[in-house]
Amino acid sequence: MRPSLFSALAAVSALALCAPAFADTLIDNVDGVTIDQGGKVKRFNAIVFDEAGTITMVLERGDKRPKVDYRLDGEGRVMVPGMIDAHVHVMDMGFAALTLDLSDTTSLENALAKIKAFAEANPGRPWILGRGWNQEKWGLGRFPTAAELDSVVADRPVWLERADNHANWANSLAIQTAGVTAKTADPAGGKVIRDAKGAPAGVFVDNAIALVAKVVPAPRPEDRDLALAKAQEVLLAKGVTAVADMGTKPADWTAFRRAGDEGRLAIRIMSYADSVETLELMAGPEPTGWLYNDRLRMGGIKLFLDGALGSRGASLKAPYADDHGTRGLALLSASQLRNLMSRAAMDNFQTAVHAIGDAANAEVLAAIAELSESYKGDRRWRIEHAQILDPADIARMGQHGVIASMQPLHQTSDRLMAEARLGPDRLAGAYPWRSVMVAGSKLAFGSDAPVEPADPWAGMAAAISRTDAAGEPFGGWFPQQTVSREAALAGFTADAAYAGFADGRFGRLIPGERADFLLIDRDPLFAAPEALRETKVLQVWIGGVRVRGD
Amino acid sequence: MRPSLFSALAAVSALALCAPAFADTLIDNVDGVTIDQGGKVKRFNAIVFDEAGTITMVLERGDKRPKVDYRLDGEGRVMVPGMIDAHVHVMDMGFAALTLDLSDTTSLENALAKIKAFAEANPGRPWILGRGWNQEKWGLGRFPTAAELDSVVADRPVWLERADNHANWANSLAIQTAGVTAKTADPAGGKVIRDAKGAPAGVFVDNAIALVAKVVPAPRPEDRDLALAKAQEVLLAKGVTAVADMGTKPADWTAFRRAGDEGRLAIRIMSYADSVETLELMAGPEPTGWLYNDRLRMGGIKLFLDGALGSRGASLKAPYADDHGTRGLALLSASQLRNLMSRAAMDNFQTAVHAIGDAANAEVLAAIAELSESYKGDRRWRIEHAQILDPADIARMGQHGVIASMQPLHQTSDRLMAEARLGPDRLAGAYPWRSVMVAGSKLAFGSDAPVEPADPWAGMAAAISRTDAAGEPFGGWFPQQTVSREAALAGFTADAAYAGFADGRFGRLIPGERADFLLIDRDPLFAAPEALRETKVLQVWIGGVRVRGD
Repeated sequence: MRPSLFSALAAVSALALCAPAFADTLIDNVDGVTIDQGGKVKRFNAIVFDEAGTITMVLERGDKRPKVDYRLDGEGRVMVPGMIDAHVHVMDMGFAALTLDLSDTTSLENALAKIKAFAEANPGRPWILGRGWNQEKWGLGRFPTAAELDSVVADRPVWLERADNHANWANSLAIQTAGVTAKTADPAGGKVIRDAKGAPAGVFVDNAIALVAKVVPAPRPEDRDLALAKAQEVLLAKGVTAVADMGTKPADWTAFRRAGDEGRLAIRIMSYADSVETLELMAGPEPTGWLYNDRLRMGGIKLFLDGALGSRGASLKAPYADDHGTRGLALLSASQLRNLMSRAAMDNFQTAVHAIGDAANAEVLAAIAELSESYKGDRRWRIEHAQILDPADIARMGQHGVIASMQPLHQTSDRLMAEARLGPDRLAGAYPWRSVMVAGSKLAFGSDAPVEPADPWAGMAAAISRTDAAGEPFGGWFPQQTVSREAALAGFTADAAYAGFADGRFGRLIPGERADFLLIDRDPLFAAPEALRETKVLQVWIGGVRVRGD
Repeated sequence: MRPSLFSALAAVSALALCAPAFADTLIDNVDGVTIDQGGKVKRFNAIVFDEAGTITMVLERGDKRPKVDYRLDGEGRVMVPGMIDAHVHVMDMGFAALTLDLSDTTSLENALAKIKAFAEANPGRPWILGRGWNQEKWGLGRFPTAAELDSVVADRPVWLERADNHANWANSLAIQTAGVTAKTADPAGGKVIRDAKGAPAGVFVDNAIALVAKVVPAPRPEDRDLALAKAQEVLLAKGVTAVADMGTKPADWTAFRRAGDEGRLAIRIMSYADSVETLELMAGPEPTGWLYNDRLRMGGIKLFLDGALGSRGASLKAPYADDHGTRGLALLSASQLRNLMSRAAMDNFQTAVHAIGDAANAEVLAAIAELSESYKGDRRWRIEHAQILDPADIARMGQHGVIASMQPLHQTSDRLMAEARLGPDRLAGAYPWRSVMVAGSKLAFGSDAPVEPADPWAGMAAAISRTDAAGEPFGGWFPQQTVSREAALAGFTADAAYAGFADGRFGRLIPGERADFLLIDRDPLFAAPEALRETKVLQVWIGGVRVRGD
């Protein structure tokens, strides 16, 4: 055995030290589909990439196959570019996936059993954290108690968020650790639920949440590393190979860099900092280069102009239909918005402004129009969400190269709420995907994970049908705003890459771009919406390396 | 020409893409000297390193030369390892080198001329910042005025620190920008020098300095990049190829990383964070790996246990000889020191504790002895400065692998001040290099730049002679504490590397370490101290690449 083992090792090490100039891989016999240079769909039958993971050829059935070093048979399966999610919160995704999810529990007993099992499965966690409980869904008729939690976990503090984020449930050790007793007064705007003797009973409402929350340990760097690994796992399972991370905090960025430094960064992250301070500290005088072979770049800033529709924080031109006393609130004044956008733009950073309500969207469009006078060139001003537009403003989306970064699943999740908030007569510009596209704006699609699942197949199904997973409403909600399958695919691939200045690097299966692709079990250009949601990702390749599937 | 141009390009690109397995370089005919694996001096005649910049052979005169790709003639010059400075402040060095230095000015007119020339040479600087003026040295008999500064620079604010840091001199635009007027009251502990009408005259004393300092713009990322480039230039000019950066702030670290990412990091930086918060944010759960081919690593934390001798901040066991009312002050309590050291050590970070006075040194030694019970293994506890030791404590320097990180130039600069502060009877343990070494502690030598010049040749001269550049005092100050030339060389090379866990990577010219070396114009093991100070660095090579000299 010795000689052959030795030569095998020698071959491996030669490969590692020195890539032969033509160590190309051919994957033949695939049913390939991509958006091409012209923005059109292109179908192909084979792909060739080099040792560096860059695509060198995309071949059709009749094309002559080159001589290569590795040759794989795609067995006729569908090949698409790696999916790109243009709006996620990577670390929040990871932390959400690592904490206990009680949103599907049906009774107190069921919840307690799940909490016990989670604690046993995670013996190393100093606190058991979770979310999603709802005593109404359990038919309990009262809040649960600390004693009930103690019956399943007494050795570590437990701290569980209610589904609506307005109450938390603690066990006795958590309450004790926080030093809350019968003597602790309720804070303004908060309530400690108490037993007959006035002692804390286990649930803390609104501003009382902080009484315990203040002692929950902040995540340590190793927790962040774990959360990033978990987020990547969740993304890769759905075939997402690149994301725009919206609101990257300093500790998020350094976790991304650690992963890059140590070879643990599989996905590609286009990072938008949470503040100008983060931009300055982490990126420096201008956007960073593309680090780790196009896997990480801080290229811009995420700003918040308003809140969300559900909490009536979205800034509207007219009062809320279900609360005539408010139009929501702009979180930045007109001059603050322009100053912050300008501070980023003057150093060539991209701006991505969260705007949900029609007033907020009109304001961002006005700011972009003004700033475009000073900041020429290819700026790709982004509006995040752009959920509710005044139809009169939609044409302005096509000006100054504005990119609409929209999340199809928000439409299907929010439609009843949107109808309540806006009333029946103000929905013409609600989630107006097709109108925005017709106006000339590029659509970059995303999920806003962990707010919605990071599932581009569900996202594409919603985009082409405006129906939810149950097929509701029949025929689609304002179906004139559906987009074509081709546009949906572009929104989750080529155009999401363009929105992050990544065109030419990834997002399309064309020569010169990175070999980021999936093998999947159905054709997204033909599957019915309900079937598209069930797409199975068989293999995930990033930069010419298979990272998932076999 | 076409075919030959084409083949030349093809050859270059093959080299770049794929290093031939034996692209070795031989530098022959040198008078080489290094510390070897056993800590002894080794002399050699030729060196071979590979394409990756790693030394593969060190050859003596009679050894057979291998077949190599590149062969250079050292022309008999002296080759030594790149110098390592075990204690610097990289960014402070850069900023100091970028601001106007008035410490050598001899008159007001001379200073004004220098200020004018500096402003003209730096048209892009929004503020003209400087330091080092002293009206006493000018024989002026009064403070200088804003009007005098206006006569040379009126278009930009000017802000100049006095030599003792206790007063600053501003021009009218700086005063105006700060909004200081005749109506501004003197702050407690500060004084605004005023003209006959009560208007600010130009100089601000002690706590009044902040009235203007608060409007001086904070350095921008591009300023930091420039400062880092300048610091590298200063270090390379003296043949310093690696440093320990003491007290790395978050913005320093990201400037180092930007330089690494963009190929602008020439020197090697062993970084010690300024706080546990910086460690956690920038390094993460443990020391970073060696980044950029062994050019950057955050491996530990710098803590301050006391102040300095000059300002009577060093913590002494007995009162100051020239101020019986004080023994200085410990900046951390015993438990704070242990907690901070423990927080770093539990995640395998190294600790480097600033301790100048004998009480502070005794305290660090006690803390190290206690922590060594919990934190086993190769910890390399560092004491920075270790200037004044109680002779009774010196034996403890040899325990638990304590490293003494000392700066020879502090001894020659401080000796008169140390005599005043300590009195004649307490100098037996002052800058006790040889005693510390005899006790078994490794000596890592440095400069504390920009406090002293980053000049290892002057440092070595001081280490072997305990005389200053003028040869004072004749025969050396407490000459029993001089070290051998070999020990001085080790302190600025192999042992400074060891002190940063870099042994095996750089610091010695032996196979397996990086080819970091200098060609210099004299032999440090033979030159007289005054000649050693004049050493000319002819070439600097880092990782097998010539970065300076020709």
